Amino acid sequence: MSTGFFGDIKPVKYEGPDSDNPPAYRFYNPDEVVMGKRMEDHLRFSVAYWHSFAWPGGDPFGGQTFERPWFGDSMEHARLKADVAFEMFTLLGVPFYCFHDADVRPEDATFAESAARLDEIAEVFAAKQRETGVKLLWGTANLFSHRRFMAGAATNPDPDVFAYAAATVKKCIDVTKTLGGQNYVLWGGREGYETLLNTDLKHEQEQAGRFLSMVVDYKHRIGFDGTILIEPKPQEPTKHQYDYDVATVYGFLKKFGLEKEVKVNIEQGHAILAGHSFEHELALAAALDIFGSIDMNRNDYQSGWDTDQFPNNVPEMALAYYQVLQAGGFTTGGTNFDAKLRRQSLDPQDLLIAHVGGMDCCARGLKAAAKMIEDKALSGPLEERYAGWNSAEAQAMLKSERTLEQIAERVVKEGIEPKPRSGRQEYLENIVNRYV
Amino acid sequence: MSTGFFGDIKPVKYEGPDSDNPPAYRFYNPDEVVMGKRMEDHLRFSVAYWHSFAWPGGDPFGGQTFERPWFGDSMEHARLKADVAFEMFTLLGVPFYCFHDADVRPEDATFAESAARLDEIAEVFAAKQRETGVKLLWGTANLFSHRRFMAGAATNPDPDVFAYAAATVKKCIDVTKTLGGQNYVLWGGREGYETLLNTDLKHEQEQAGRFLSMVVDYKHRIGFDGTILIEPKPQEPTKHQYDYDVATVYGFLKKFGLEKEVKVNIEQGHAILAGHSFEHELALAAALDIFGSIDMNRNDYQSGWDTDQFPNNVPEMALAYYQVLQAGGFTTGGTNFDAKLRRQSLDPQDLLIAHVGGMDCCARGLKAAAKMIEDKALSGPLEERYAGWNSAEAQAMLKSERTLEQIAERVVKEGIEPKPRSGRQEYLENIVNRYV
Amino acid sequence: MSTGFFGDIKPVKYEGPDSDNPPAYRFYNPDEVVMGKRMEDHLRFSVAYWHSFAWPGGDPFGGQTFERPWFGDSMEHARLKADVAFEMFTLLGVPFYCFHDADVRPEDATFAESAARLDEIAEVFAAKQRETGVKLLWGTANLFSHRRFMAGAATNPDPDVFAYAAATVKKCIDVTKTLGGQNYVLWGGREGYETLLNTDLKHEQEQAGRFLSMVVDYKHRIGFDGTILIEPKPQEPTKHQYDYDVATVYGFLKKFGLEKEVKVNIEQGHAILAGHSFEHELALAAALDIFGSIDMNRNDYQSGWDTDQFPNNVPEMALAYYQVLQAGGFTTGGTNFDAKLRRQSLDPQDLLIAHVGGMDCCARGLKAAAKMIEDKALSGPLEERYAGWNSAEAQAMLKSERTLEQIAERVVKEGIEPKPRSGRQEYLENIVNRYV
Amino acid sequence: MSTGFFGDIKPVKYEGPDSDNPPAYRFYNPDEVVMGKRMEDHLRFSVAYWHSFAWPGGDPFGGQTFERPWFGDSMEHARLKADVAFEMFTLLGVPFYCFHDADVRPEDATFAESAARLDEIAEVFAAKQRETGVKLLWGTANLFSHRRFMAGAATNPDPDVFAYAAATVKKCIDVTKTLGGQNYVLWGGREGYETLLNTDLKHEQEQAGRFLSMVVDYKHRIGFDGTILIEPKPQEPTKHQYDYDVATVYGFLKKFGLEKEVKVNIEQGHAILAGHSFEHELALAAALDIFGSIDMNRNDYQSGWDTDQFPNNVPEMALAYYQVLQAGGFTTGGTNFDAKLRRQSLDPQDLLIAHVGGMDCCARGLKAAAKMIEDKALSGPLEERYAGWNSAEAQAMLKSERTLEQIAERVVKEGIEPKPRSGRQEYLENIVNRYV
Repeated sequence: MSTGFFGDIKPVKYEGPDSDNPPAYRFYNPDEVVMGKRMEDHLRFSVAYWHSFAWPGGDPFGGQTFERPWFGDSMEHARLKADVAFEMFTLLGVPFYCFHDADVRPEDATFAESAARLDEIAEVFAAKQRETGVKLLWGTANLFSHRRFMAGAATNPDPDVFAYAAATVKKCIDVTKTLGGQNYVLWGGREGYETLLNTDLKHEQEQAGRFLSMVVDYKHRIGFDGTILIEPKPQEPTKHQYDYDVATVYGFLKKFGLEKEVKVNIEQGHAILAGHSFEHELALAAALDIFGSIDMNRNDYQSGWDTDQFPNNVPEMALAYYQVLQAGGFTTGGTNFDAKLRRQSLDPQDLLIAHVGGMDCCARGLKAAAKMIEDKALSGPLEERYAGWNSAEAQAMLKSERTLEQIAERVVKEGIEPKPRSGRQEYLENIVNRYV
Repeated sequence: MSTGFFGDIKPVKYEGPDSDNPPAYRFYNPDEVVMGKRMEDHLRFSVAYWHSFAWPGGDPFGGQTFERPWFGDSMEHARLKADVAFEMFTLLGVPFYCFHDADVRPEDATFAESAARLDEIAEVFAAKQRETGVKLLWGTANLFSHRRFMAGAATNPDPDVFAYAAATVKKCIDVTKTLGGQNYVLWGGREGYETLLNTDLKHEQEQAGRFLSMVVDYKHRIGFDGTILIEPKPQEPTKHQYDYDVATVYGFLKKFGLEKEVKVNIEQGHAILAGHSFEHELALAAALDIFGSIDMNRNDYQSGWDTDQFPNNVPEMALAYYQVLQAGGFTTGGTNFDAKLRRQSLDPQDLLIAHVGGMDCCARGLKAAAKMIEDKALSGPLEERYAGWNSAEAQAMLKSERTLEQIAERVVKEGIEPKPRSGRQEYLENIVNRYV
Repeated sequence: MSTGFFGDIKPVKYEGPDSDNPPAYRFYNPDEVVMGKRMEDHLRFSVAYWHSFAWPGGDPFGGQTFERPWFGDSMEHARLKADVAFEMFTLLGVPFYCFHDADVRPEDATFAESAARLDEIAEVFAAKQRETGVKLLWGTANLFSHRRFMAGAATNPDPDVFAYAAATVKKCIDVTKTLGGQNYVLWGGREGYETLLNTDLKHEQEQAGRFLSMVVDYKHRIGFDGTILIEPKPQEPTKHQYDYDVATVYGFLKKFGLEKEVKVNIEQGHAILAGHSFEHELALAAALDIFGSIDMNRNDYQSGWDTDQFPNNVPEMALAYYQVLQAGGFTTGGTNFDAKLRRQSLDPQDLLIAHVGGMDCCARGLKAAAKMIEDKALSGPLEERYAGWNSAEAQAMLKSERTLEQIAERVVKEGIEPKPRSGRQEYLENIVNRYV
Repeated sequence: MSTGFFGDIKPVKYEGPDSDNPPAYRFYNPDEVVMGKRMEDHLRFSVAYWHSFAWPGGDPFGGQTFERPWFGDSMEHARLKADVAFEMFTLLGVPFYCFHDADVRPEDATFAESAARLDEIAEVFAAKQRETGVKLLWGTANLFSHRRFMAGAATNPDPDVFAYAAATVKKCIDVTKTLGGQNYVLWGGREGYETLLNTDLKHEQEQAGRFLSMVVDYKHRIGFDGTILIEPKPQEPTKHQYDYDVATVYGFLKKFGLEKEVKVNIEQGHAILAGHSFEHELALAAALDIFGSIDMNRNDYQSGWDTDQFPNNVPEMALAYYQVLQAGGFTTGGTNFDAKLRRQSLDPQDLLIAHVGGMDCCARGLKAAAKMIEDKALSGPLEERYAGWNSAEAQAMLKSERTLEQIAERVVKEGIEPKPRSGRQEYLENIVNRYV
């Protein structure tokens, strides 16, 4: 039974590129087969509970703009929120959703009581999942909004906070497992510092390493077969966050021997804040074998904070999915819309339409990327560019069969003076433009 | 015998804080003992040959502004340059200098001939070192200016460039060893990419790892006991450089098992371009045990490229040297002025005065940092902040003696609800201001 | 009678540079005469009501951290807040404070009722001003926090919002006048856009110009002799704000013929976000004859949003006050601390100490700036650099007495080939370092 | 007769969207009519002589990469360069080109001799223009590369440089007029400062105002009917440039009463460096009635310097041309490719292909923009959003017929409490995606 929140609306359907019906897909066609796989199975779309159902529309200079019937502190509100959320998942036809504990139920007076409330809402979710077929992409704990976490969770100077955070994550993994979640995400929004003056960097990194090790151990012990994902972000809310970017997370995982246990959930906006393109972070994670999932949004290129907008630039999406496909596509991961409405987009319709537009943009990017791969449009020129490394002598250098002296001697003997060759960047950019 | 370039100037002396003589030290007093060590031995100042003697004053929109008698392509010019350089080192009283091969002699037609010219100038340097007592802090190879390196050196798609780069580094390590250099630096100015469209990220990282492994092997084989240093930089000249920042370099070293062999040379300007404070990069390198040396300069906070200005903000220097001292100070490393005159600073005097000001700024920062350490001005509050971790239970969590379940159980049982405590940032900032 | 909020603390006193008493001034000595004027009269310090008394410690990823007895929605809370605020003003010994309507009293159901509450609290303020001698530096209206202003106030697409904003500003000017405020400030936090797609830039600029013209007319009509100030900011909360920076505001004022009526209130953090140094904005406002007042804080150079931290870098303050003094110092303006505690700085003491540190930093900067001016440390070399313009021919060019042809003819005839002279930047930077 | 530089290539033709021939237009079809005008006449493409023919491929860390037969210091080289340049203009079928004096001929020993060389090459150009039909979009003077301009041209502390610059601009306007140039551009690459410490901001702004006034006077006196254009840029090469952005230039023009005489030439990359989107600068210039022409390129969003890449993102181009068309399209202005090859793009083919890709990208953007306008896709919703302003009372407020008091009185009387309405940003973004 409908809550009526979205009015008299029918499930959003694929109508093809020529449709000008705002709540219709022009490119996202779940059953369409792309590179041998259904689009739905490629993209694995997920809606983020927090932005769409918990965020009131505030920013640092203004308060709530959205008026939602489920805003409130009671469990009744929480249940109504769940009703509308699953209603939207179904209207959109997305296969997945994600949530933090704090999004789905109000905290109670004690840890134990808050945990009980989480169980209560999890039962609601379980029923709704059965009913709608919508699945949980990942669960996560909000270890950053409450003032107890103001100086970090795992990396707090107070071991009681570390303990509280550990208990919280345990609970959230339990619930994620119960709901069949396919991943568990850690975003360390307060794992970092505001000033080095009051921070013991080394101690905090040890805390973080220990915390993550316990999480991995626990996962194995309880037989949770989802993937543990870290979500990098360079800063905001803190001045510096330890999971700065993919490369930093990789070094951290290596330090604690966890690089085969944990992967990354890469967000476009976070990549931009770290000074990277989205495709860079994706390509790097793939090269380091830690690619897991993506948080899809876009950042305003002229703003220095996380704007979490819905993606709308198809050429950028094509480059992103090109990397995803080159990495073998998603396994447990997916495309989670960690995107929020602009705070002026007040209407229920806006919530639907924003997701429709974002999904279409991704679908269009995916199709372009798949076609480029099938045509070897970029991989052909790439192979040619590195072809020199196929020679026996080049392979010997690369495979530790030559010393610096031997190479130096050969350079002198053969009078090697390399001839630069065109990098053909503009040519390759033009090729991409044929596909988008 | 003086070249006359600096006119009728005497060696720069320490004259104390009240001096208003432009070419005099107001704070840098080499023999003054700070925390049990001479200032000269703490700071280990070094002049960078390239900016001060090889750079003509150009920028992307304009050409040469400096008119130096040694600008030219002959070995005579190279020798005159060496004369003036050592004259300046002596006038300043700096104990060290640094150079790339390309700074000190013109290339010749072949690799072998260029190498011979390097040997020739190295003999000149050796004599001057003996004569003046000035020592070589580090040597390095310029693997980024010549067009053969336009698509990278170790990470070039062409294995001939890899070979050429390997031969060049071998030669430069040989010369560095001969001259008693205390470190050897690799800055990968072109080790990165302009566009992912033509880049095989994984292949290039393998190339880089192999290259560095060979360098380390070679160092040991020839008994060079200096430190191998990587200098991180996020971008510029390329869109993305692989040695992005300290955290990235650490991950790279771990991947190739080199984290005990190689350290980092941290530059203020590069830290800023990567979105970090200088002190962050220093603190992180210390925490990861890869701190080696520093390239001292400053970046304009409003400019998005490497401005390489002389440092002039004492409070910032105090925070930087605080981290250096906390890391145990320099061993083989030092404070290299990788700083260039503004291109309008045409006069010989400017070259001297810029270094004098920069050295004074560092000395003043060092003294403030040392005093803060002696007073436990920051470390006292820091210990207090993390004191909770000294409890038995907290140590048990940190030392892998507790599981997530055990901790969660304790949180429930003890009804743990952490009480936030003030981070006291402004208090600590005010304390720093007492020292600078 | 004390509220007891700050505990058993005495008014903060000047104790000289050697004091290590946290709540004591080491440099701010109100009665000390600098360049012929008392420091208090130079600096004209003001505390911002909003950050210190209304802000709960939230950020985009976390909620309230501060626990203040005056947080709440009643007029009783508002009165308690006023008690503590004036207590702090008195403890600090600042001569001024500032406020928005929204900071000092809760809104009520209608405009008229909200206005009545403002009058009520204004009476409280008037009494406290008489009692303590603290004065109002400026008043202002909060036209950005309430959802009615989400799409702008003066520049809203809805003329009812324009009207509501006009009524609000009228009311706030009335109250400001009543309280003897020396300025009235307009910060257009929502006067801008989130996307050009839904924005009629030209229409909105016309609205803004009309609005400001009405404000100026009103001021004259009621005989308010304070200065109308616009506070530039480039973005945040919106993507683009119309009062981007000083230069933009100047163009806007010229367009509507208001450049003699309105001046600017320059904030350090806003300057940084616009890509400028603080001193640039100050110097430019002085050159354009629209310098009015300053909002003192600092922005984290590595963060892309407004961090509003207390200033702590003395060399930067010296350069800022150098510009203020060169502009003739403040007339109606002053140094308002638009700075907020870090959200982890929970203790009442933090609030005091942060201001003490900031005031000391400013005082120290002011003294350094004054000494530089007295010594002509910078102005001497500056005059020399532009001395060529004193020649008759140069003056003729500058005074419209030469045409392009005449000048071109002279260049050819005299064979003019200008000789570059050193800009001596490092020399001048070293000079500044003698004073800070 | 062909120089042979581009090998055996035919003029680039329109082949339609399905073509995969690299040197063919897929969207640029000069004679195709869009909104009642030929595409060629809409876009008015121009090639920039400097990047394509004068730039050697250097960057701050590396030297020349391109090997062009016309690189050299003689007038023979200059003539060969002209031959190849016009060959490329013809192959591409662009109607326009642009140049600085310094691009087209080597300087000689004196101003007079350099001017004579400019005349000499201008005769070559005149002949080639007649022969090929290619026209001059604009001429300009390079007042930033030579060391004489290191501290500015019009804003130099040395009046001799001002004079030299004035003579140079006079000469360049003369040549531009002779060649039938449709505009004359001033880009103040050195009109700014490196440090405020040695800068008299007010004096330099007076110099700049006087200089521009003389240029405008001269233009009228000689009957040059082209448009004088200022090209804004915020910084680089200098720390701060006076022509920061469109808003700043407008204020400057107003100050000197030139806002009806001078327009702006807006560059995408410069907009980005100033913290703006390209479409913002275009929309603002149109709103201020100073829109003139565009320098088309793109900036890497992750790089902090001017990357001057060829445009390749169609959705961005659509938004840009939407603003151009809304502003009425170009009159004397056009789309000048101020874009340079990546320095690794060594081949003659790269030069052609880069322009082909860029032109196609613009053409595709133009067509999308035109269709949006014809469909009122964005203007319809926009009108609706501002419809409230059509009421009599709203118009009265806007037309100076109401005072603040009157409006305030009405707010109270009518109990106005505005109701926020959705800004529909995502809906509008989705609409744009229907067109690109």
